[in-house]
Amino acid sequence: MKDVTLDIPTYEDMLSAHERIKPHIRRTEVLTSPYLDEMSGAQLFFKCENFQVPGAFKVRGATNAVFGLNDDQAAKGVATHSSGNHASCLSYAAMRRGIPCNVVMPRTAPQAKKDAVRRYGGVITECDPSTTSREATFAEVEAKTGGDFVHPYNDPRVIAGQGTCSKEFIEQTDGLDMVVAPIGGGGMISGTCLTLSKLAPDCQIIAAEPEQADDAYRSFKAGYIIADDAPKTIADGLLVPLKERTWHFVSNYVSEIYTATEVEIVDAMKLTWKHLRIVMEPSCAVPLAIVLKNPDAFKNKRVGIVVTGGNVDLDKLPWTL
Amino acid sequence: MKDVTLDIPTYEDMLSAHERIKPHIRRTEVLTSPYLDEMSGAQLFFKCENFQVPGAFKVRGATNAVFGLNDDQAAKGVATHSSGNHASCLSYAAMRRGIPCNVVMPRTAPQAKKDAVRRYGGVITECDPSTTSREATFAEVEAKTGGDFVHPYNDPRVIAGQGTCSKEFIEQTDGLDMVVAPIGGGGMISGTCLTLSKLAPDCQIIAAEPEQADDAYRSFKAGYIIADDAPKTIADGLLVPLKERTWHFVSNYVSEIYTATEVEIVDAMKLTWKHLRIVMEPSCAVPLAIVLKNPDAFKNKRVGIVVTGGNVDLDKLPWTL
Repeated sequence: MKDVTLDIPTYEDMLSAHERIKPHIRRTEVLTSPYLDEMSGAQLFFKCENFQVPGAFKVRGATNAVFGLNDDQAAKGVATHSSGNHASCLSYAAMRRGIPCNVVMPRTAPQAKKDAVRRYGGVITECDPSTTSREATFAEVEAKTGGDFVHPYNDPRVIAGQGTCSKEFIEQTDGLDMVVAPIGGGGMISGTCLTLSKLAPDCQIIAAEPEQADDAYRSFKAGYIIADDAPKTIADGLLVPLKERTWHFVSNYVSEIYTATEVEIVDAMKLTWKHLRIVMEPSCAVPLAIVLKNPDAFKNKRVGIVVTGGNVDLDKLPWTL
Repeated sequence: MKDVTLDIPTYEDMLSAHERIKPHIRRTEVLTSPYLDEMSGAQLFFKCENFQVPGAFKVRGATNAVFGLNDDQAAKGVATHSSGNHASCLSYAAMRRGIPCNVVMPRTAPQAKKDAVRRYGGVITECDPSTTSREATFAEVEAKTGGDFVHPYNDPRVIAGQGTCSKEFIEQTDGLDMVVAPIGGGGMISGTCLTLSKLAPDCQIIAAEPEQADDAYRSFKAGYIIADDAPKTIADGLLVPLKERTWHFVSNYVSEIYTATEVEIVDAMKLTWKHLRIVMEPSCAVPLAIVLKNPDAFKNKRVGIVVTGGNVDLDKLPWTL
């Protein structure tokens, strides 16, 4: 049943989203590593959303929003604010539909992510690296362009789109005991909850968060949203706070949130590069970091890990700095 | 028809090899990138042999050799010399069968490759980084251990095993106009010739070689094998010379050999990491380098590229040195 007050997306919205976006996204590969299995004591499955064309799972929600617009709305284009991947993914989806995309980005965002937005025709307006500045700058851009606001995560179309990832994940693995995904604003986690609560209700949903940006963890323990203005972590995709729609899913369906230190995140990132031989961002290393840190919680389980994105500045790898 | 003099493997040997090794290897993913397609003017398909568990296509030939041994031979184990990936792949295959594996490796081989051999239980004897020293040291090891010699490429079992890669590649892509693979000793190229000359005779086979280790190129132009003793290139998997069995395939079935400079190889490597988001070795960047360098030869073609391996020292990436 649809929650009218919050406009919470339903399982059927997720199914419609999957049909809508299928021609535009990749059904990404699931990789495994006997070495990481041995190291963790669990059976790990990695859903490689870094292999999406614009390099992140966020292409799912963005594409669902863009291709769900009617022609009148589409003519004015879309607009958003994002720490990176939502911006390039929305630009990519808008480019595929041939409509304008305006994005507000912190000036401190990695150059690789700014380049990606521009590659897909997105127009960037820079702001300071805080939630406050981001939201103020965005209000100006939105007023000027008239673009349809596609929030990076607190948008039912976006959450329904992100939920398509877990649907594929369950199909590709013939079932999982747990799914672990990183949590920033909570879009991927919310989509995961939306899908698995119906499709695989016995599958536990675990969120993984940097210790240095642990507002979701503290919110989860407190029972209400706690937001930090400008946390600092190498996992630059996870800086933003929960909002009411993602809080709905986190508070109702997430089993546990674990945190990892910066060193643990970098170690897990390097392990993944070495043993899965994929290029992925620090943000997507947080799940493996928390699995290795809490072996008893995952022992002998079939654990799905969402590798959320692969847009890294190859000239600034954390272990070479 | 089998060439008895050289013991050249047949198409049927390749089919048998595929059945034999299937339980032990991965049917690796084929990835694509619209960005690299646009850049090259071709339609590129990347067969990700870096996703094999020990990180290289060489697990195919090594596994075919190891699992084809009768029990008496197997009890004495296997032995080889290799600049790296054949050594770890043979160790991996031997570990899966539970038999000993002795390997002779140049002391200059990357630490990551030595670690990989030891991880799979292989015993390393070091030699100087020249073909001469390698062969002399190996003779001692072979005499001492009695292990069955599995040459890294000049072995019909190994060539038949490597040929299974192209069989999957054609099946997974519904056909290709050309396949490009790096050439060192010629094992992958020979397997590719073995398979495609029968399965897809109109598919051109192109070899890609570092300019600084261009002995295969010069052999191809001269019409006889030219061997260098100790060439130097960042593509450390491609240092070894052709031998009579690989020369048989190269001289009969390869359409062209192109070369690339060190800078072109590193640029292509970084492009692949950035846009395919995979970790692969400098050696496997040579094919993309030659495709970008010779656009007229590949324009509008469906081009398969074999990504041969992913065992890289992440602390010594060529663009951070």
